[in-house]
Amino acid sequence: MMVEKFEYLSKILMETFEEVGQKNPLGEVADYIPELSKADPECFGVSLVDLSGKSVGYGDFEKKFSIQSITKVFSLSLCLGHFGEKIFKRVNREPSGNPFNSLVQLEKENGIPRNPFINAGALVISDMLLDIFDDPKQGYLDFLQDISNNDNLSYNPKIFTSEKENKERNAALAYFMKSYGNINNDVDRLLDFYFFQCAIEMNTMELALAFRFLANHGLVPHSKNRVLTASQAKRINALMLTCGFYDEAGDFSYRVGLPGKSGVGGGVVAILPQNFSICSYSPVLNKQGNSTKSIQLLEMFTSNSGESIF
Amino acid sequence: MMVEKFEYLSKILMETFEEVGQKNPLGEVADYIPELSKADPECFGVSLVDLSGKSVGYGDFEKKFSIQSITKVFSLSLCLGHFGEKIFKRVNREPSGNPFNSLVQLEKENGIPRNPFINAGALVISDMLLDIFDDPKQGYLDFLQDISNNDNLSYNPKIFTSEKENKERNAALAYFMKSYGNINNDVDRLLDFYFFQCAIEMNTMELALAFRFLANHGLVPHSKNRVLTASQAKRINALMLTCGFYDEAGDFSYRVGLPGKSGVGGGVVAILPQNFSICSYSPVLNKQGNSTKSIQLLEMFTSNSGESIF
Amino acid sequence: MMVEKFEYLSKILMETFEEVGQKNPLGEVADYIPELSKADPECFGVSLVDLSGKSVGYGDFEKKFSIQSITKVFSLSLCLGHFGEKIFKRVNREPSGNPFNSLVQLEKENGIPRNPFINAGALVISDMLLDIFDDPKQGYLDFLQDISNNDNLSYNPKIFTSEKENKERNAALAYFMKSYGNINNDVDRLLDFYFFQCAIEMNTMELALAFRFLANHGLVPHSKNRVLTASQAKRINALMLTCGFYDEAGDFSYRVGLPGKSGVGGGVVAILPQNFSICSYSPVLNKQGNSTKSIQLLEMFTSNSGESIF
Amino acid sequence: MMVEKFEYLSKILMETFEEVGQKNPLGEVADYIPELSKADPECFGVSLVDLSGKSVGYGDFEKKFSIQSITKVFSLSLCLGHFGEKIFKRVNREPSGNPFNSLVQLEKENGIPRNPFINAGALVISDMLLDIFDDPKQGYLDFLQDISNNDNLSYNPKIFTSEKENKERNAALAYFMKSYGNINNDVDRLLDFYFFQCAIEMNTMELALAFRFLANHGLVPHSKNRVLTASQAKRINALMLTCGFYDEAGDFSYRVGLPGKSGVGGGVVAILPQNFSICSYSPVLNKQGNSTKSIQLLEMFTSNSGESIF
Repeated sequence: MMVEKFEYLSKILMETFEEVGQKNPLGEVADYIPELSKADPECFGVSLVDLSGKSVGYGDFEKKFSIQSITKVFSLSLCLGHFGEKIFKRVNREPSGNPFNSLVQLEKENGIPRNPFINAGALVISDMLLDIFDDPKQGYLDFLQDISNNDNLSYNPKIFTSEKENKERNAALAYFMKSYGNINNDVDRLLDFYFFQCAIEMNTMELALAFRFLANHGLVPHSKNRVLTASQAKRINALMLTCGFYDEAGDFSYRVGLPGKSGVGGGVVAILPQNFSICSYSPVLNKQGNSTKSIQLLEMFTSNSGESIF
Repeated sequence: MMVEKFEYLSKILMETFEEVGQKNPLGEVADYIPELSKADPECFGVSLVDLSGKSVGYGDFEKKFSIQSITKVFSLSLCLGHFGEKIFKRVNREPSGNPFNSLVQLEKENGIPRNPFINAGALVISDMLLDIFDDPKQGYLDFLQDISNNDNLSYNPKIFTSEKENKERNAALAYFMKSYGNINNDVDRLLDFYFFQCAIEMNTMELALAFRFLANHGLVPHSKNRVLTASQAKRINALMLTCGFYDEAGDFSYRVGLPGKSGVGGGVVAILPQNFSICSYSPVLNKQGNSTKSIQLLEMFTSNSGESIF
Repeated sequence: MMVEKFEYLSKILMETFEEVGQKNPLGEVADYIPELSKADPECFGVSLVDLSGKSVGYGDFEKKFSIQSITKVFSLSLCLGHFGEKIFKRVNREPSGNPFNSLVQLEKENGIPRNPFINAGALVISDMLLDIFDDPKQGYLDFLQDISNNDNLSYNPKIFTSEKENKERNAALAYFMKSYGNINNDVDRLLDFYFFQCAIEMNTMELALAFRFLANHGLVPHSKNRVLTASQAKRINALMLTCGFYDEAGDFSYRVGLPGKSGVGGGVVAILPQNFSICSYSPVLNKQGNSTKSIQLLEMFTSNSGESIF
Repeated sequence: MMVEKFEYLSKILMETFEEVGQKNPLGEVADYIPELSKADPECFGVSLVDLSGKSVGYGDFEKKFSIQSITKVFSLSLCLGHFGEKIFKRVNREPSGNPFNSLVQLEKENGIPRNPFINAGALVISDMLLDIFDDPKQGYLDFLQDISNNDNLSYNPKIFTSEKENKERNAALAYFMKSYGNINNDVDRLLDFYFFQCAIEMNTMELALAFRFLANHGLVPHSKNRVLTASQAKRINALMLTCGFYDEAGDFSYRVGLPGKSGVGGGVVAILPQNFSICSYSPVLNKQGNSTKSIQLLEMFTSNSGESIF
């Protein structure tokens, strides 16, 4: 990206960040897991990185938070890169039209989740990942450290324990799919690995760095490692656009116009292919479970800058 | 678009058209309306037009066909341009996760359709359009003739009559929404207008021309008439990407990577913002009700040319 | 029934009627049709008739009211008596598990209603009845006049008109089933006949008389006319028990223990096979659409008298 | 029951048994648990016992089999007798309208099962029973031994183990309800107790004896122990009639006209209040999971004898 354009985007981002920061966001910090509810509702930060490595951050952009469902993009990328298209025999790639942890659709469609970004789909993806690593947790961290150019990532053991103590809904999803033959591993082992992923902590700059391969035809810009083929990267971007925001995917796509993914920890990451990645963090969530301020920021930023895929 | 690029795309399109044309498509011509079932399964044509007006067509690209659900994009554009965002109080903009004429979702969500591209949503949009024209059918044709630069458009009276004689499902949708207070006009009058829209006939070149304002920030390239604001055009593109292909929207987005819309008449139109629009026609449909060959053509064309929004 | 038993039941009924009459029932008069909302919420009456013809009535037991869904029992009896078991190819006989006018189940089961006592099922039954009479409305009244030993029955034209003006939901059901091929007649003609049935007016004594054939092996006690075989009568009783109270069928069966049927006009009829029929009327409805006082009365009466099928 | 009537019923039962026994039943032995699939499809037996203790059995009436879901009636009786009506805050008493192990309804109704005779409801009941016994399994067997006048009951450890090895669907149900706060105990402990109940083995004579308290106002005829009040017994009978046969409850009620309960082990028990209980066994199941021959036998027996509650 030319220096002028980067500076132009940085300036618009700064102005947008200030404007959104002054609003009092409607919503609540996630409380379905006690440990998550301890997040500071005042926190707000954003980072933007272009493909050449130029970066800018505002506010609490270095505050670590639980990446939660954002991890589903990393898991899908790892899995698609390793197994290829055949993974879509076990998980579809259609928007769900239902809340993120619904069992209704699973029953109607014989245990095949609608897409890899609802919990059921991510459990199936995790079930496959268990088979490609000797030490799945370490393998997963190694991958994240490579793409974020940061060998100091870890998970939050309190969040991890809190997730495990509140495993009921995900246990129900996993056992339900296993009853259809769509989970191969032991459910407790699967949930342990799944909650580990959700409990990984990163800040907005690390996440923005880590998503750049999706804006760069599947190639990690700094290391030149190929995670995905160009075609696979394009396809994951399409999936993020159609399925990345739970039951609000259509609305996010409509208002923001960038492929992205949110997590109930309060993070939202989005990319503009061939241009940049951007990550915002604020733990106050709207009723769909997406960060209120982060979505406002991205909507205003794309409107003000005119940057969108459409 | 530079001449070189246009010629490059034309060449790839020609090669792709020939390759797909040799395949025997799986599927059937639409038979839910008797008149539609008379389409010639051998027909196959495609047109591409860039924003400067350069165009190319192959095969039966001038064969007229029933535009069917493609008309939903025109209706939404007219309606959004006229009323603005408030139309989304009566229709949502989320993917449906259900077949195009399902009533289940309507019941769950109190008569508010999931999006304007399922039948229920298009009926609500048509209900609004009835109030903005003295002569809704003529007003609708006038609009289409402007954006397609063609004052010789019409509808097929046999298809129109055939639709009316098989109105049951759409009548059920309309009465159901009226029971929730979400249809204002008389149901018979509404269906008459709705079936008229579906029965309009255009060829691939006319449709490609007519979609260009969506690739051009809402401005019709040849007439400079503004149909939508830049922001509204972007938003309709986002809706096409997430909801344009019924229950196959995610898959189309995943494989093709362009905003588009299909109709059971066999047409598929798609655009690349700031670049071109493309329309393919072949009446043989897959089980989701989308043209088998047209989708194959678009998938191969975007793969071979590397053109996509992602 | 022995005189002593009849006098014993009459006395318990009187005491129960007085006790329930002093309560202020929770709920509202039906308002989904404006004309129904004009019923007097203070009205309360009950009649009991045994198979020998001994009868007793309390309160407003001669007040005429709109029989509404109670008519579904008469329609089913006529239809089953005429066509026999083959009617169950077009309508099932399972509890619905959904509100009385839901379309969800219809979509899941391809236009076959769950049972003849939900609206969709009654529309299918009415569609069949249209074919067995030259003048369906007169034929229907003739039947009712025979079984109630009363040649002075009629319908309320204001209720009838009010139903027609609010036909949307039933029109949606009828068109939806017609789209599956499960309605043969013109929808407007069908609805006209259906609303006529709902608008018929009877009082509690007339209804109690009219239901006696179901407590008497299918034979009308006073005229000795056979409406149904003994086996068919038993089966309709079973259907009333499992499906007669919309989504509250299980609860009514659990608390009252008699086969019966309610209508949103405020009437509830029930029978004890080989013994008696009983009909109560009070237009204040609970949230399931059943008469609050009438259900209380029946529950207390069966508890106090020890009369039940279980 | 008078000797003449008992002998009359015995004779009809014998004739019916012989007639049904000659038919080749449509269907399959249960195979969802491997151990169940080993049942001998030729087995067929029936027992009838009246309230005075007169009994008769035909065929394999002393063959032990897995009582499976029939145990749900015993569990509900124990639970209702112990806790009273308040148990219905945690489980409804409406027919389900869905297959016996569906999660759809649970999601729609916030983790409250539709009735105690679907798996979800029985799990909730079992969760309550865990709290009333020091040794729940022994307490449960003690109860069964009392009501069946037989101190030699046990469970089949192979079936029990087979159930545990195929626990996925029930584990999903239990975790799902626990996510709504409607299961208090540890899921593994709950499933252990639940599968124990399903694996209990009895023959048709033992089951017929054990059900007599439900035909006798809640009082065990031989021991005079009171399991339930008269009102509670009536209510459980009502529940069996409306909900005792999964998605076929309406049909069973329609064709047989007796309250009853079936199990996938092949047993069906039914009662005629104040008269008798009857139990039939044949392991070949129809597609709803009910014993084909047993249901045929009961239907023919009630038709031929004229005995029914309706």
